[in-house]
Amino acid sequence: MEKTEEIKFKAIGLIKTPYIDTAPYQPIAEDKGDFRIVLNYAYANGLLQLDKFSYMYVIYYIDQLSSKTEMIVHPPWSEEEVGLFASRSPMRPNPLGISIVKIKNIEGNEIITSGLDVFNNTPVLDIKPYIKDLDSKEDANYGWIQEGQKDKEHLLLHIQGIPHDY
Amino acid sequence: MEKTEEIKFKAIGLIKTPYIDTAPYQPIAEDKGDFRIVLNYAYANGLLQLDKFSYMYVIYYIDQLSSKTEMIVHPPWSEEEVGLFASRSPMRPNPLGISIVKIKNIEGNEIITSGLDVFNNTPVLDIKPYIKDLDSKEDANYGWIQEGQKDKEHLLLHIQGIPHDY
Repeated sequence: MEKTEEIKFKAIGLIKTPYIDTAPYQPIAEDKGDFRIVLNYAYANGLLQLDKFSYMYVIYYIDQLSSKTEMIVHPPWSEEEVGLFASRSPMRPNPLGISIVKIKNIEGNEIITSGLDVFNNTPVLDIKPYIKDLDSKEDANYGWIQEGQKDKEHLLLHIQGIPHDY
Repeated sequence: MEKTEEIKFKAIGLIKTPYIDTAPYQPIAEDKGDFRIVLNYAYANGLLQLDKFSYMYVIYYIDQLSSKTEMIVHPPWSEEEVGLFASRSPMRPNPLGISIVKIKNIEGNEIITSGLDVFNNTPVLDIKPYIKDLDSKEDANYGWIQEGQKDKEHLLLHIQGIPHDY
């Protein structure tokens, strides 16, 4: 395999969330609290017209991890054995996270968003607009979640980060 | 701003496409030719059950760039002025690309996919399953593309990478 050199990135800003010790598995759209992306001032002009979009991708560096990366994982709510790349586990060879959030408002170098499933002060690497025809795949499926699962509805609550008490 | 240290990633494999000198702006689903992700052998087990999904995200390092990053960009097919983070321009502070592709088959450490909008031998950083309820936002919009544009349909052909001769 070619191209084994290190690839270097740097934070363009930080994600501000109420999560210090624990965070949900996935974004909670109706999450209460203050969620915002604070970009370095040098990048503020790059936000022009972003507020025309209803959704955006936030790409971040999952920097608060202690567990080891394994190629086979067990989702926390399932006994299924799945490959790491068939899962959204944060313990990946390159700990890159992607969340899709609603854009509520832009104030200078800050983007106020719907709920984000990350710890406070997580470094942001990139922001991209979510464009309906390009990113919304209505014929997508649920992969291994839809087969051989006793309780698909319950699993989907976990996957979507919807709080529930059963 | 805190956290200014370098973030280091490494390629987990390479993307193989027919594109040597030019590439489309976005994935072309019906693209002819051979498109595949070749992972390093160490990661092959991480593909278990990925073939149950119809789509996946490919996250890659856009390593063949020569242009400079500007905070205000003009999309190649439009006179609109938009912020870099309201665009999908590849010239970003961290040149990270995301494409959503169909999973056609998995053979050992290789994933055969639908068309990918990148040059041959682009380094792959991560693969994630595209999960319908989490990633498909039917209420998403077209942002600045839907306002004040003379020819939205034409723009969407460009954005979706659909070939056309007008």
